[in-house]
Amino acid sequence: MSGSVYGTLFTIATWGESHGKGIGVVVDGCPAGLLLDEQYIQAYLNRRKPGQNKYSTPRKEDDKVSILSGIFEGRTTGTPISLVVYNENQKSGDYNNIAPAYRPGHADYCFDQKYGFRDYRGGGRSSGRETIGRVAAGAIACAILNELGIKVQAYTKAIGPISIDPAKADLDNVPLSPLSMPDMEASDKAEEYLLEQMKDYNSVGGIIECIVTGVPVGIGEPVFEKLDASLAKAIMSIGAVKGVEVGDGFHVAELTGAENNDPFITEENDTILKTTNHAGGILGGMSDGSNIILRAAIKPTPSIFKTQKTVNRDHENIDLKIQGRHDPVIVPRAVVVVESMVAITLVDQLFMGMTSQINKVKEFYKK
Amino acid sequence: MSGSVYGTLFTIATWGESHGKGIGVVVDGCPAGLLLDEQYIQAYLNRRKPGQNKYSTPRKEDDKVSILSGIFEGRTTGTPISLVVYNENQKSGDYNNIAPAYRPGHADYCFDQKYGFRDYRGGGRSSGRETIGRVAAGAIACAILNELGIKVQAYTKAIGPISIDPAKADLDNVPLSPLSMPDMEASDKAEEYLLEQMKDYNSVGGIIECIVTGVPVGIGEPVFEKLDASLAKAIMSIGAVKGVEVGDGFHVAELTGAENNDPFITEENDTILKTTNHAGGILGGMSDGSNIILRAAIKPTPSIFKTQKTVNRDHENIDLKIQGRHDPVIVPRAVVVVESMVAITLVDQLFMGMTSQINKVKEFYKK
Amino acid sequence: MSGSVYGTLFTIATWGESHGKGIGVVVDGCPAGLLLDEQYIQAYLNRRKPGQNKYSTPRKEDDKVSILSGIFEGRTTGTPISLVVYNENQKSGDYNNIAPAYRPGHADYCFDQKYGFRDYRGGGRSSGRETIGRVAAGAIACAILNELGIKVQAYTKAIGPISIDPAKADLDNVPLSPLSMPDMEASDKAEEYLLEQMKDYNSVGGIIECIVTGVPVGIGEPVFEKLDASLAKAIMSIGAVKGVEVGDGFHVAELTGAENNDPFITEENDTILKTTNHAGGILGGMSDGSNIILRAAIKPTPSIFKTQKTVNRDHENIDLKIQGRHDPVIVPRAVVVVESMVAITLVDQLFMGMTSQINKVKEFYKK
Amino acid sequence: MSGSVYGTLFTIATWGESHGKGIGVVVDGCPAGLLLDEQYIQAYLNRRKPGQNKYSTPRKEDDKVSILSGIFEGRTTGTPISLVVYNENQKSGDYNNIAPAYRPGHADYCFDQKYGFRDYRGGGRSSGRETIGRVAAGAIACAILNELGIKVQAYTKAIGPISIDPAKADLDNVPLSPLSMPDMEASDKAEEYLLEQMKDYNSVGGIIECIVTGVPVGIGEPVFEKLDASLAKAIMSIGAVKGVEVGDGFHVAELTGAENNDPFITEENDTILKTTNHAGGILGGMSDGSNIILRAAIKPTPSIFKTQKTVNRDHENIDLKIQGRHDPVIVPRAVVVVESMVAITLVDQLFMGMTSQINKVKEFYKK
Repeated sequence: MSGSVYGTLFTIATWGESHGKGIGVVVDGCPAGLLLDEQYIQAYLNRRKPGQNKYSTPRKEDDKVSILSGIFEGRTTGTPISLVVYNENQKSGDYNNIAPAYRPGHADYCFDQKYGFRDYRGGGRSSGRETIGRVAAGAIACAILNELGIKVQAYTKAIGPISIDPAKADLDNVPLSPLSMPDMEASDKAEEYLLEQMKDYNSVGGIIECIVTGVPVGIGEPVFEKLDASLAKAIMSIGAVKGVEVGDGFHVAELTGAENNDPFITEENDTILKTTNHAGGILGGMSDGSNIILRAAIKPTPSIFKTQKTVNRDHENIDLKIQGRHDPVIVPRAVVVVESMVAITLVDQLFMGMTSQINKVKEFYKK
Repeated sequence: MSGSVYGTLFTIATWGESHGKGIGVVVDGCPAGLLLDEQYIQAYLNRRKPGQNKYSTPRKEDDKVSILSGIFEGRTTGTPISLVVYNENQKSGDYNNIAPAYRPGHADYCFDQKYGFRDYRGGGRSSGRETIGRVAAGAIACAILNELGIKVQAYTKAIGPISIDPAKADLDNVPLSPLSMPDMEASDKAEEYLLEQMKDYNSVGGIIECIVTGVPVGIGEPVFEKLDASLAKAIMSIGAVKGVEVGDGFHVAELTGAENNDPFITEENDTILKTTNHAGGILGGMSDGSNIILRAAIKPTPSIFKTQKTVNRDHENIDLKIQGRHDPVIVPRAVVVVESMVAITLVDQLFMGMTSQINKVKEFYKK
Repeated sequence: MSGSVYGTLFTIATWGESHGKGIGVVVDGCPAGLLLDEQYIQAYLNRRKPGQNKYSTPRKEDDKVSILSGIFEGRTTGTPISLVVYNENQKSGDYNNIAPAYRPGHADYCFDQKYGFRDYRGGGRSSGRETIGRVAAGAIACAILNELGIKVQAYTKAIGPISIDPAKADLDNVPLSPLSMPDMEASDKAEEYLLEQMKDYNSVGGIIECIVTGVPVGIGEPVFEKLDASLAKAIMSIGAVKGVEVGDGFHVAELTGAENNDPFITEENDTILKTTNHAGGILGGMSDGSNIILRAAIKPTPSIFKTQKTVNRDHENIDLKIQGRHDPVIVPRAVVVVESMVAITLVDQLFMGMTSQINKVKEFYKK
Repeated sequence: MSGSVYGTLFTIATWGESHGKGIGVVVDGCPAGLLLDEQYIQAYLNRRKPGQNKYSTPRKEDDKVSILSGIFEGRTTGTPISLVVYNENQKSGDYNNIAPAYRPGHADYCFDQKYGFRDYRGGGRSSGRETIGRVAAGAIACAILNELGIKVQAYTKAIGPISIDPAKADLDNVPLSPLSMPDMEASDKAEEYLLEQMKDYNSVGGIIECIVTGVPVGIGEPVFEKLDASLAKAIMSIGAVKGVEVGDGFHVAELTGAENNDPFITEENDTILKTTNHAGGILGGMSDGSNIILRAAIKPTPSIFKTQKTVNRDHENIDLKIQGRHDPVIVPRAVVVVESMVAITLVDQLFMGMTSQINKVKEFYKK
């Protein structure tokens, strides 16, 4: 299995290479009756589109999506939704000189070892363009979540050493910041830092944080399909992610139980809440009714313009100078990819969660 | 799906509650011909067994495993291997007073919301005893990996704020340290810290690190079934894990591309290596031939003996004083659980990786 | 994968060999709140138990089931239900003389080729005893279906050339007939035929028919997970089944469209019915509201006491005389196995069918 | 799940409706290095293409396939292969008059009940055109099987009551017969019969037989993933199939054990064979080295031009006269669909079968 199919009940199968004819996804298991059109999906794709500002690759792609199936009279029919984005601005020639090289930080060497050869043009299947399928499917997942009152929102928490100040963060800023940060002061500083690294032919990484609101209590299955376990896989499956954490994450290692436990409290309106949220909205693998909070560590773009030491497929030690068009940072464009993977995973878990009680199944089928 | 089945080709189905008749696992997809006996599996279970020292619950359980199927004349037959450990030292009475309470940091509230009620005795299915099935299956996975020259070893990297010093670490120390740390100096300090917290009726968390050696290049599937994505799910599915990272993990967010990229080099014997391993042995979701390095953040045990504020199932705000037998830290006992989940996941990926090239499939079936 | 795990949301993992310690199943995904005890499951197992009359193997087994997990205070908790039946009356010595032989009609040769060796005692994993796990899980599936008003009933339609006369069939007869036939006249004739073949050290086959009533319209997924496709796999996965058909089955090949189409009609109470049921209750892979009708062709027991030509594992041509304890016909004991596989499959499809409309998902999660 | 994804290691995800923009499939898990081009796949699609003779729908469709991904320099890369066929000759207007009607023998009623509404144009997703994705993927599966020396060939065994005479059958005739029969005499008679029914505005069914040669011994997993079980699902998932049988199939119900058992024999060259093949090449769910033989019963096309009684979505009883373009028999065009589903399923099982012995896994990974 090359593992391009994801999900159990809400299933997505993505396909396509950076320099092939196009990129796409088949979404299977979307319920019937959902309002859906290309314009809605396009808005998500536009958020990851290249060329939006000087911090993303100058490759010009409209990334215009077409819906090929699964919609009738403006609504989903319950059959697979096939979405395609054709590649337009390929410059495969850029890759001829580096075709034989194993670029540091890239999977070239692994691909050759695993498959015997590889489509070296633009990273082939491990190009960032692979995420187009994820985002197109993620848009559909978000449309489903929207019907259920659930909202997924991610943003850049840090670029290199520059982190947002939660006190100054406002989610309304995210679309205004070229780096998708909710704190404009941090965003400005991060731009400075980034420009500095770009001048040095270098690249930077960062951290994306994702908040999910409105999730009912009890979503997630308590053993292997824990909600946080599934989300960890979803996020770690995005190229360049090297770490995932929930709630206080790695910081919990230093806390005591008394510090880390979130007390429950019954409010005056008889609803149960937690007074703190170290757990990030997930206990025992199930949503606990608080906001779900996740973070992903994104590595610096491996394609840098500095000369690097490496080897080629003939096992020769070489000096490599990468050319072409590359993002000096992929964090801002990955924000919507994180949202998408979270949304897709959550829909699947919500669907699986419908059979937890016999009385609810009985009521569902009673007419 | 309650999600107690895990894996695609090497599949495990675990079952059992803390205070039910027993705990077990069915392992499906183990190749035939593997030498296997109860003694071998017992050695793994003994590493997570309670009551080994003053830092683990005084609940006395031998956790003696029986193999019920799948072995003939000392070897696996290729049919499912059913393993069971009967519970012996249950004291369900301990839980009567807290049955109606929603313990902070526990999933009680989520269970009640999801399933309508719950087996409140000892955490039921979300007890730490649930990991017995994982470890028994993990022992089998390790036996398979052993045949392939692959070794998985985990240890405690930090307890609360006390971290090991890599310069002083020696894996031979791990079995000697009551906290499973490879640095005895850190281990002593961590004991002191832990005893202090125990006196305060409190608990502590920590970090587990896992190293895998000997993995062939190219294991893992490049999109959703990336090796690191699958491992992240595996590890995050262990109760109490709040974060997972690979290689430099969250630290990469602050690195530049030039710092983070690992240069390839061809050695004199013509083998390709990386001169550094920021990537933790995984590039583009595939093993790159270096050691695989993972870390898991473990939260402090939520069961503490301090009085806590919380609510009960009647929505009343209450003061809760937990009694019974609880580990003040679960990190040392979770070390073998991390190894197990890594091993199980790796076996599955190794099996899936056998079809990546048509020539290799052809050669396999050629007679 | 040795394929002993079955189902997507309602998952069963069976294990055990004929002459191992026992046979069992782990049922994952059973909703919480279902009343369930050992006595209820035992009633299903008793229907497949050996030694009930002279037409089944004289191997004496009580096949007493124990529930090891998943039940609390008489109800399912939503966690895995582990069920075990210990083997008692093994006579492995019976198999020593035939251990090296490849019995005609059995899988001995295939096992040796696939796995390198095999547990030759009593057929090992391909023994009829393997179905104990299916039936124990099937009992649980039937309990779920019962909550939804769905009933699965199978019976022997034919033994060798002796078929029931539908005009004389009464389902109340099934438990009275030693061959599980609903037509006592046919049952008597079939007994005669069977006794005759037994005297000749021979065995016979037959046909099992299964009727499912009360299935809501629209269960089954229209492409690969068609209800009839899933049921076909379920039934064909029972050892000895060589054919499966739905409704008019193979007979449709000779019908014209005008003969085979079932007209719809609206009754006076405004419900839509079909006036005939050639389709067997399934159209386009989805239930159509009529009774679901299936048939399975069961081959004659391959273990016969006549001397047979065959080979052994040393490739020698030999004369084989099978001894031991064998059913001269397995059809009657397989009736409850067919019911079980149908019930398990139907539960899975009912669970998957809960997400077909966004409005229904929305209503489910609305608070 | 709408169930449009099929397979475990060799996975296909089909999409598309009769009157949407197109039909396609994403094939995931094809090994790298396989020679593949559009022309090769087109040859398979041409065999199911409409308008080839007077016995198929006059809808004119070139069904020209495009490969959108997964191929580089003429070979598969191991990444998903996306294939698309655009619809050209839609006449959706044909369906306006029958949009509200529930056509007998069709799934219209089930679709409306399950999904709330349906794409009524040409059957939407349950159109015969859905099989384009299966055949395109089947062509790839056949290319893989070809590398392993395995050949899948199906043909029409019967049209209505007219069956081939095995003594007169020659597989070379299949492409010559407009009904895909290997016996030209039977083919002529079947044409006569069919023309007669067409004059009566009626339709006919038939039987397809499929032979697979060259399968290694031991393919298939002994319990739920039996080779015959998986093939039964594969074939029954093709619209219009109402029965599946292996080897002697339903006929075995009337045989005795002595008649039905296939004796093994060791040939002079030391190879083990069976002297007969009642089992159809599968024992205990595993291939036994003989030819695999399967049959599928195909119902007569439900769209007939005779006036039929039925109801509409307003529950009114109506007289329905279907117009438009319909095959009077779908058997000949379904032949390549059966081959495709068999090939796809077999590839998946061959891939899964690579882990049955630890020694073979070890040897595979040894370098």
